[in-house]
Amino acid sequence: MTSPAILVLTTGGTIDKNYFDELSEYQIVDSGIAGLLTEARVALPIRVVELMRKDSLELTDADRALIAGAAREAPEQRIVVTHGTDTMTETAKVLAAEVPGKTICLTGALSPARFAETDAPFNLGMAFAAAQLAAPGVWIAMSGQVFDGLKVRKDRAAGKFVPL
Amino acid sequence: MTSPAILVLTTGGTIDKNYFDELSEYQIVDSGIAGLLTEARVALPIRVVELMRKDSLELTDADRALIAGAAREAPEQRIVVTHGTDTMTETAKVLAAEVPGKTICLTGALSPARFAETDAPFNLGMAFAAAQLAAPGVWIAMSGQVFDGLKVRKDRAAGKFVPL
Amino acid sequence: MTSPAILVLTTGGTIDKNYFDELSEYQIVDSGIAGLLTEARVALPIRVVELMRKDSLELTDADRALIAGAAREAPEQRIVVTHGTDTMTETAKVLAAEVPGKTICLTGALSPARFAETDAPFNLGMAFAAAQLAAPGVWIAMSGQVFDGLKVRKDRAAGKFVPL
Amino acid sequence: MTSPAILVLTTGGTIDKNYFDELSEYQIVDSGIAGLLTEARVALPIRVVELMRKDSLELTDADRALIAGAAREAPEQRIVVTHGTDTMTETAKVLAAEVPGKTICLTGALSPARFAETDAPFNLGMAFAAAQLAAPGVWIAMSGQVFDGLKVRKDRAAGKFVPL
Repeated sequence: MTSPAILVLTTGGTIDKNYFDELSEYQIVDSGIAGLLTEARVALPIRVVELMRKDSLELTDADRALIAGAAREAPEQRIVVTHGTDTMTETAKVLAAEVPGKTICLTGALSPARFAETDAPFNLGMAFAAAQLAAPGVWIAMSGQVFDGLKVRKDRAAGKFVPL
Repeated sequence: MTSPAILVLTTGGTIDKNYFDELSEYQIVDSGIAGLLTEARVALPIRVVELMRKDSLELTDADRALIAGAAREAPEQRIVVTHGTDTMTETAKVLAAEVPGKTICLTGALSPARFAETDAPFNLGMAFAAAQLAAPGVWIAMSGQVFDGLKVRKDRAAGKFVPL
Repeated sequence: MTSPAILVLTTGGTIDKNYFDELSEYQIVDSGIAGLLTEARVALPIRVVELMRKDSLELTDADRALIAGAAREAPEQRIVVTHGTDTMTETAKVLAAEVPGKTICLTGALSPARFAETDAPFNLGMAFAAAQLAAPGVWIAMSGQVFDGLKVRKDRAAGKFVPL
Repeated sequence: MTSPAILVLTTGGTIDKNYFDELSEYQIVDSGIAGLLTEARVALPIRVVELMRKDSLELTDADRALIAGAAREAPEQRIVVTHGTDTMTETAKVLAAEVPGKTICLTGALSPARFAETDAPFNLGMAFAAAQLAAPGVWIAMSGQVFDGLKVRKDRAAGKFVPL
């Protein structure tokens, strides 16, 4: 197996949230994803592109078109997208329709990467492996599992992703 | 995709190392792997079995036979093995010879999971995804990559795993 | 020097903030102060009382009277109060007026204790030392410094406490 | 209270220990103390000098003379010394004899600062407050307490410092 090149597209979401102070709401800041990959000692050729810094509830159709365009036009065949969890499945549908022939894995976090306790690095690791191993298509890596991106939903009450 | 059950066998290694004080050497302690899986909010059915607590340089043929036996006899088809990095590839060979028909992914860490900066949760995430997605056989997830377990070596000088 | 008993009163503030998900604002949760003291291996006799869980901008005169009452009625002579930073100096004035003869040190954090990078444990350490060493009166430990609690203000633009 | 300038002398010890891999012992590396002070958002004028990187069991009389000389010759009146815990009290005696008229607080950690769970930042916070508040003399800040540096010992079995 040769080392595949992986493109990482960051879009914001809880995984990249930070906290400032009592007068301001917490905000999505400069992405910490590249730092997570350094900490994980990733030695593959990777490229990290920060597309936007949005809560996934604020993502518009235009934002999703931009994500799909970036994935489609990229030279890489294997793509990881970091994304807020609340509308991750909606973006998965757009990517499945708009980006044929590539392996794309979306992931995010229920607890921000800047927290001492967080699911961010584990989830990012799942997404990296899925981008390398899975068949072309759109996948979602959350809650310890790699799901078909079109057959999964977030169960907000239970705090986890579950199969449709 | 139904939720696959995953067996996690822990054997020790850097990933589970702790530090005590200036008079004692650091030691491998009770495995922190189950804690990492909780922090990662893994919602799959999993079973964690602590087989041994050894530096991988101290693993004997008998230890490797024990690991292979535990993998072979387990009801689970998908297995993650946490392991020291220095002889991970030797154990991979034994598992490939002794445990046919299962998907086994070995992983570990170059920096202990108890450190503030560590590759442990990312690597464990890769191994979980590989155990779910990869074909039957033995795999190694390290350095951001999922390798064929029989076609990889640790480059100690460079501090990473590279393809053979 | 005999080991002094220290009372810790928690009132909320950034130091105890947590984050849930994209649909809910972050909230102050069960205090993590006791956990920080365990991690710091504090071996003094201590008593931790969670008085309230409030952002300091929401504290009322009644809340401050309650904090002062708890400090005044306590058997301990040495008291640490964890508190939001935005109105910490207002509570300091009330404590100075209402609780004579005790050494009280307020502290908090600009970054939540649950973050990987946080000033919380350092500040709590300063407050513990100040409660042991300082003369009776009200003190504020923030920004690496122990201030007279009546001669300090928060410079929000600069993100630090400075002498009046 | 004007902002006092504080000198921080680092000498090594557990607080600055790191771990490399299974073939090498863990080692004391470039001091992380300056990083801890940044994370703690210390806004005082400080100066950090790395004197040596030694396990405190390896400190010689010459090393202690060097530490005392650096403390005595420094323009700062208030000094924090980070130090291994096993012989911290021996260095305290030398400093008490050799550096009159200054406030010096020694501190260290039972768990390395690079660990996710560590007493390092809390202890460093105690030492900073003690350097600002305590009378001239030598102090030791460990186990949640600020001790007279000549009236304290490490109880290795109990894992804490206790009064003599």
